[in-house]
Amino acid sequence: MRAEILSCGTELLLGHITDTNAPYLAQSLATLGIDLYYVSQVGDNQGRIVETLRRAWERSDLVIMTGGLGPTEDDLARESISALLGETMQVDPRLEAELRGMFTARHATMPERNIKQATLIPSAQALSNPRGTAPGWIVEKEGHIIVAMPGVPREMYQMWEHEVVPRLSAYTGGRIFTRILRVWGLGESTVEEQLDALLHNSNPTIATYAKNDAVDVRITAKAETHERAEQLVAEMEAQARQILGHHIFGVDKETLQSVVGRHLTERNQWLAVMESLTGGLLSSTITDHAGSSKHFIGGIVSYSPDLKVQLGVPRQTIERYGIVSEETARAMARVIREYMRADYGLGITGVAGPDKQEDKPVGTAYIAIDGPEGVVTGMGPGWRASREDNKRLATLAALNLLRLHLEGVKLGQR
Amino acid sequence: MRAEILSCGTELLLGHITDTNAPYLAQSLATLGIDLYYVSQVGDNQGRIVETLRRAWERSDLVIMTGGLGPTEDDLARESISALLGETMQVDPRLEAELRGMFTARHATMPERNIKQATLIPSAQALSNPRGTAPGWIVEKEGHIIVAMPGVPREMYQMWEHEVVPRLSAYTGGRIFTRILRVWGLGESTVEEQLDALLHNSNPTIATYAKNDAVDVRITAKAETHERAEQLVAEMEAQARQILGHHIFGVDKETLQSVVGRHLTERNQWLAVMESLTGGLLSSTITDHAGSSKHFIGGIVSYSPDLKVQLGVPRQTIERYGIVSEETARAMARVIREYMRADYGLGITGVAGPDKQEDKPVGTAYIAIDGPEGVVTGMGPGWRASREDNKRLATLAALNLLRLHLEGVKLGQR
Repeated sequence: MRAEILSCGTELLLGHITDTNAPYLAQSLATLGIDLYYVSQVGDNQGRIVETLRRAWERSDLVIMTGGLGPTEDDLARESISALLGETMQVDPRLEAELRGMFTARHATMPERNIKQATLIPSAQALSNPRGTAPGWIVEKEGHIIVAMPGVPREMYQMWEHEVVPRLSAYTGGRIFTRILRVWGLGESTVEEQLDALLHNSNPTIATYAKNDAVDVRITAKAETHERAEQLVAEMEAQARQILGHHIFGVDKETLQSVVGRHLTERNQWLAVMESLTGGLLSSTITDHAGSSKHFIGGIVSYSPDLKVQLGVPRQTIERYGIVSEETARAMARVIREYMRADYGLGITGVAGPDKQEDKPVGTAYIAIDGPEGVVTGMGPGWRASREDNKRLATLAALNLLRLHLEGVKLGQR
Repeated sequence: MRAEILSCGTELLLGHITDTNAPYLAQSLATLGIDLYYVSQVGDNQGRIVETLRRAWERSDLVIMTGGLGPTEDDLARESISALLGETMQVDPRLEAELRGMFTARHATMPERNIKQATLIPSAQALSNPRGTAPGWIVEKEGHIIVAMPGVPREMYQMWEHEVVPRLSAYTGGRIFTRILRVWGLGESTVEEQLDALLHNSNPTIATYAKNDAVDVRITAKAETHERAEQLVAEMEAQARQILGHHIFGVDKETLQSVVGRHLTERNQWLAVMESLTGGLLSSTITDHAGSSKHFIGGIVSYSPDLKVQLGVPRQTIERYGIVSEETARAMARVIREYMRADYGLGITGVAGPDKQEDKPVGTAYIAIDGPEGVVTGMGPGWRASREDNKRLATLAALNLLRLHLEGVKLGQR
């Protein structure tokens, strides 16, 4: 099955918005085993939409349109499909009742131009849209399918997953199951290299994606039943875990902060941090996790050196080893653990940039964790990146060190 | 002049990456006064690239390609242009010398397949690429132009701005000058409504864009000379400032944190913060600004209520008014100002979500600033958003309150 995407909207061609619908659909089509050959963007001009739609109709089995389903004169998706197929739009009484009901529930009167959102053509069926006023269309005719969905991503995602994908499974056959393994501590190319023997497998497929907070390894299987697809993924996952070991920190929607939070909450242990390099980002990342008030006492952003001394970091440690040193990180971890009466104190110091500090290069970071088992230390990221990237990479390095320590992985302990 | 964009790369059609080049180019074309009618994405398949390129050549004056200029067999932009025009690619000695020089400078041997990055066809001129190994092409033939640039955004941006736009000015005529006014405290639709009388102007044009940290008002003028374009922008800017007043916090690349930092550094004054709701994000945002060590002492993330009391927030204040209250925010501001011996102490407390707290709804935020002029207080964002959005909006509300206070704008002072 050959698919093609057509994104409608003048705002795309003015660069006011980025088309994130197409990559979302592209990923989904790939997991469904449907080939995508073309993506096109067209403005709100009926001539150009029909021209592009006609070409798509001729060369593809499945045409997926987004946008152009609103109530205004600029919204031309329905009109263009009707023109292409030579069919006439008519108000569907059931859709009209639903639409009017939606406005009534909001204590509003429906503007009359909205009525076109309740129309159909003979070849089209409506796709329901619980998140908005515009139902979608699915047209099946002469062996081709056209799907028209709203351009608003959250409306489109819902419609695609709940209305369209189930209808397409008649064409694709089988069930899809996907699991993401989340990796930290290895670059994407290293992960790929290590998984090389698995990457050419066709079912399940396995692929890597570099994200801001992890390298994701996505395993996708297709089978007659959901159970069989899940089992295929589990077998492949076992092999990947054999290779990547403790570099895998979680699955699917887990994050380093949610995993650290889970470990601490399970043990009823509490964390406190003192950070300078990361300037608050470490605390902020920890508190991005909604359950963080159950394991995070708080943090101190000791941006000025004097503040570190005021809090208890010995002045002679700073003078002898420098602010950016393992020894200062260790003192910060000890001091914050005591100050906040935490089970674990985490200290992090380094050079965010753009300038080097104490002759230490941008990207230097020293991390120390002071806890019931003693002190462990780590470094990271160690390379020169932008100020914001250094903060982010150092934050993730600190969370990963704590995660490994809580999982009992042997580190540079002493 | 009618333009069309063609983005090449199988990774786009698998949804592995999002095409951010097309919206970047679309915005730039809009400011150049060049109409963009179509954007297409095609995989690394020569047949499909040539097919799409031929159609673009027939219906558009300017075809802008990105991607497909790498050294591998999958990189087919040059081959496709040559096939379309029936011309033969030949190694250009000057390009070859430059390319080999680049590898020598990196102490590497050039893989022989890279040689195609040094080729041209008779109708093409090279566009230099200081950020990578692949030069671009610009082809001018029979009244049409094809521009081929690398897909890597940072290479493409540089090439577009420095190599392509100057060559296009022969076709567009005149000089372009753009200035962005950055606004906080008003929603995008309110900004649009207030600027309504200016929005229909054709030169300069004025348009609004909602960003994560501001609503941007972009003013763009076109004139015979740079000076005249700048003057046109200045006149429009004066009108916009009349309307939006102190809601404009900066221009171009300024941020709330850079503006606050500039004010404080100029006065040689120092800031300290105590935050709970924002969980470290306020400190982190302040320290995103590279000069922050010159005005920011540090911060405390007092996530647990006991920690607030330990630091000096009176227990009776918390018990009487609640952790989420203006009174607690005022105590936090005072305590941190004293503790860190800062000129300004900023306290912020609220409900990030997903659950309400002390019966106060998600999105509640109380902000207080304790400084030489007394205490000012503010609220924000006040509406229910996601946890991360609430943190972000509250952080920006706090920075904006401090910015207004430092600029002498009269607030809820007492």
